[in-house]
Amino acid sequence: MSAGAPRASWSRAARTLVKRALEGVVRGWTPRVDLPLSTWRLTRDADGALELGGRRLDGLFAQWGSPLYVVDEMRLRENAARFTARPEGAAHGCEVFASYKTNPVPGVLRTLHECGLGAEVTSAWELWLARRLGVAPERIIFNGPARTDEALAEGIASNVGLINLNTRSELVRADRVARQLGRRARVGLRVVPPGGAGGQFGERIDTGAALEAFREALQQPHLDVLGVHAHYNGRIDSAPQLSQFVGALLTFVDELQARLGLRVQILDVGGNLACPTVHTLSRRDLRLAQTFAREPTPPPVDEVLSIDGYVEGLVRPVEAHFAALGQPPPRLFVEPGRALMGNTQMLLCRVASVRDVDEAGVRWAILDAGINVAEPMTSEFHQLFALVEPRGPGRQLYRLTGPTCTQADCLYPAWRLPKLRPGDGLAIMDAGAYFVPSSTCFSHARPGVVALGDGAPRPLLRPETFEDLVSRDEPGAVLRALHAVGGGP
Amino acid sequence: MSAGAPRASWSRAARTLVKRALEGVVRGWTPRVDLPLSTWRLTRDADGALELGGRRLDGLFAQWGSPLYVVDEMRLRENAARFTARPEGAAHGCEVFASYKTNPVPGVLRTLHECGLGAEVTSAWELWLARRLGVAPERIIFNGPARTDEALAEGIASNVGLINLNTRSELVRADRVARQLGRRARVGLRVVPPGGAGGQFGERIDTGAALEAFREALQQPHLDVLGVHAHYNGRIDSAPQLSQFVGALLTFVDELQARLGLRVQILDVGGNLACPTVHTLSRRDLRLAQTFAREPTPPPVDEVLSIDGYVEGLVRPVEAHFAALGQPPPRLFVEPGRALMGNTQMLLCRVASVRDVDEAGVRWAILDAGINVAEPMTSEFHQLFALVEPRGPGRQLYRLTGPTCTQADCLYPAWRLPKLRPGDGLAIMDAGAYFVPSSTCFSHARPGVVALGDGAPRPLLRPETFEDLVSRDEPGAVLRALHAVGGGP
Repeated sequence: MSAGAPRASWSRAARTLVKRALEGVVRGWTPRVDLPLSTWRLTRDADGALELGGRRLDGLFAQWGSPLYVVDEMRLRENAARFTARPEGAAHGCEVFASYKTNPVPGVLRTLHECGLGAEVTSAWELWLARRLGVAPERIIFNGPARTDEALAEGIASNVGLINLNTRSELVRADRVARQLGRRARVGLRVVPPGGAGGQFGERIDTGAALEAFREALQQPHLDVLGVHAHYNGRIDSAPQLSQFVGALLTFVDELQARLGLRVQILDVGGNLACPTVHTLSRRDLRLAQTFAREPTPPPVDEVLSIDGYVEGLVRPVEAHFAALGQPPPRLFVEPGRALMGNTQMLLCRVASVRDVDEAGVRWAILDAGINVAEPMTSEFHQLFALVEPRGPGRQLYRLTGPTCTQADCLYPAWRLPKLRPGDGLAIMDAGAYFVPSSTCFSHARPGVVALGDGAPRPLLRPETFEDLVSRDEPGAVLRALHAVGGGP
Repeated sequence: MSAGAPRASWSRAARTLVKRALEGVVRGWTPRVDLPLSTWRLTRDADGALELGGRRLDGLFAQWGSPLYVVDEMRLRENAARFTARPEGAAHGCEVFASYKTNPVPGVLRTLHECGLGAEVTSAWELWLARRLGVAPERIIFNGPARTDEALAEGIASNVGLINLNTRSELVRADRVARQLGRRARVGLRVVPPGGAGGQFGERIDTGAALEAFREALQQPHLDVLGVHAHYNGRIDSAPQLSQFVGALLTFVDELQARLGLRVQILDVGGNLACPTVHTLSRRDLRLAQTFAREPTPPPVDEVLSIDGYVEGLVRPVEAHFAALGQPPPRLFVEPGRALMGNTQMLLCRVASVRDVDEAGVRWAILDAGINVAEPMTSEFHQLFALVEPRGPGRQLYRLTGPTCTQADCLYPAWRLPKLRPGDGLAIMDAGAYFVPSSTCFSHARPGVVALGDGAPRPLLRPETFEDLVSRDEPGAVLRALHAVGGGP
């Protein structure tokens, strides 16, 4: 392995030369333009301090620690209202089920249920949580690729509104479980629209597997076959994408009626609508940022399909299609996650350490938040703001890394900011989708979640303590018990 | 976006044709050869059931659930003994500090401390844990890139054996904190050997920054500058790599003496030794597995540097170097993680659902364990065994995916196994490095950890419960309190 070293060092030298020659050019390509503060209802006070609803965000650290997730309750309710709104003149809107897996913070989910949303759950634990939060069974959709017989039994016995079966092989199991319970299960079947790749999810329409699965489902005596369930393969960010997806599903619904005599009662189109201020960074973008410290570009927010546009783009074609057939339309279910919650939460964090400028002219700031609490940022654009923006010039290009002992823990390979010092605060936008469920306890306890609304900040999840992190330690439990009776350390 | 659809479907058709033509060839390249069971002290009983130390592994599910991490205590103690062994004829061996971040299971760490290992911690929480587990302060190394002043103060006040400072900027902070405490801090400085890229870690030797940092450190009145700290840039799996690394550090240690008059008392060479049965899968390997269902190839286990060879390769050159100078050698610290714990733990899991063969002839099995509990497997080879291997032929190529609702949740794109049914058990080897700390609560509670040793299975961490998952829910805490006094649901 060391035999290749001299050659490797030559090629490294060559790479360095090329890199130096290119980096001035590359960095100049597109200077970063921040999305406006008003996108998130943020403002700055006279001291340059970031505020939400007139409350300084850096003031939250004293009570709740850092890092900290902060929920914008007003935006959360507003997004929920947009999803549930009936388009003007339409007979019905969508029935909306919050995707639990996207942001399983009970306090957030309670607010969404208050707004009239049901629950879309994908595991036995999420089903348990929905029932714990008091969601009526008929307002629960139970999805998921890995349900055991016990989990299916739980769903059937709870009489949930819809169990979407993932594959043909699950049909037979669900029928058997329902029979054992002496019940009938209300089911849909997940299908993959033509052109999509379903992976482990659903049966393909284009191979005929989906039709066969429905044929088989209709033969099972303990299944009520109510629905067609599908997800778009990727993020939906334009009206034509949505239109093509809905069109393919309506064609299949017609085929079910023509070939099997099945009138679909529920059309469940899943989630996948984009959060307009987040986009996936290409490998090229990531390489340019890492190698040349080129700052990323925000998505074209105004061009992304809005929640209103999405609801319109679903309800209108479905109503028109069935009006033309002279039939009542099926109920239209949606399961939003990203678009519902993504932009309603931010992650506040602080600078722990700043190091000297390296050879490439990049200064490093090491934060108390990293991929342990912001995993989606390894591949997504998220707007960043300093919690206090000083007046005057003097900005510097930073590489912002996290607190875990791995070089992979990098949140922003390149982002220009005012001069940072240890203790300075930052706000990472759009932390409401997949930040909380993908968080780990890697070397650090997990943050709290606080909601900002009309009144005082409202804690939703308290920050994790060191004691929490050993609460499952079995010998520890014994030691603590000893301690409680006066023995032990 | 839909305008490109006809063209996209042509190119998709072309890709499919090429793929079909190639896949027979590609799959034939190298049939998978399993590493022998004895590599992990495993055996099979007369029924084909997998055993560790004579105990059937599938019997553990009944009490501890699935998935489940299982620790091989004998192997753990054996690895620890190899790291602490003094090479024959050498005056000293290494002083060994277990990397807490690699597998922060208190029961595992207790065993390692019983074997005489100290603690290498990288955060305030890990420092707290080491003290909670009763580790003597002088047996603790405190590392990490993101220490606040409070964390540094905690380390200094606890009088830990060594605080390795990460950057020049941290020197001044550490000195100030020590002064405020009226103490002197025992410090090392992290350096980056020539040719390596340190990222956010350490000061580079080749630019002179490391020497300057030591010069500055020696001027701080409240720092005792004891050590040089470095990590190899990447995994060490051969003797020449180690030799080159140690040589570069010894050259720098000489330079510190010649230029600054500093006699280094501690040489801390970090971790990075490979686990011999795990290797990183290249992007090419991953693509071949995903596209053509080609099975991965195990690493050349016998060629990988062993723990014994590693200790030899450290101790001998360091002793020889200082013997030639007529000086006593510095203390030699190592911080193993991967090589110490990787192959001492496995992940048991079960098949939740099996689906039909798809067009490519691949059958899908959906497991109750996925990237939520086995994140390192997105880029690493890990041997897999069926918990019960039936006699006779009839193997099938499977794609093994996890329980979370994302296509990315794939553990094995291709692996040939006996015919699987829901409920069947599997054992994923080498789950002792980074599986536990990178685990999440994504839609599923986290598994328990059980140790197998001489006697009965010993629980180290109990499985997480649904109640655990809402224990930080603030309104929930209120509800539970109401419930306890007889109100609530």
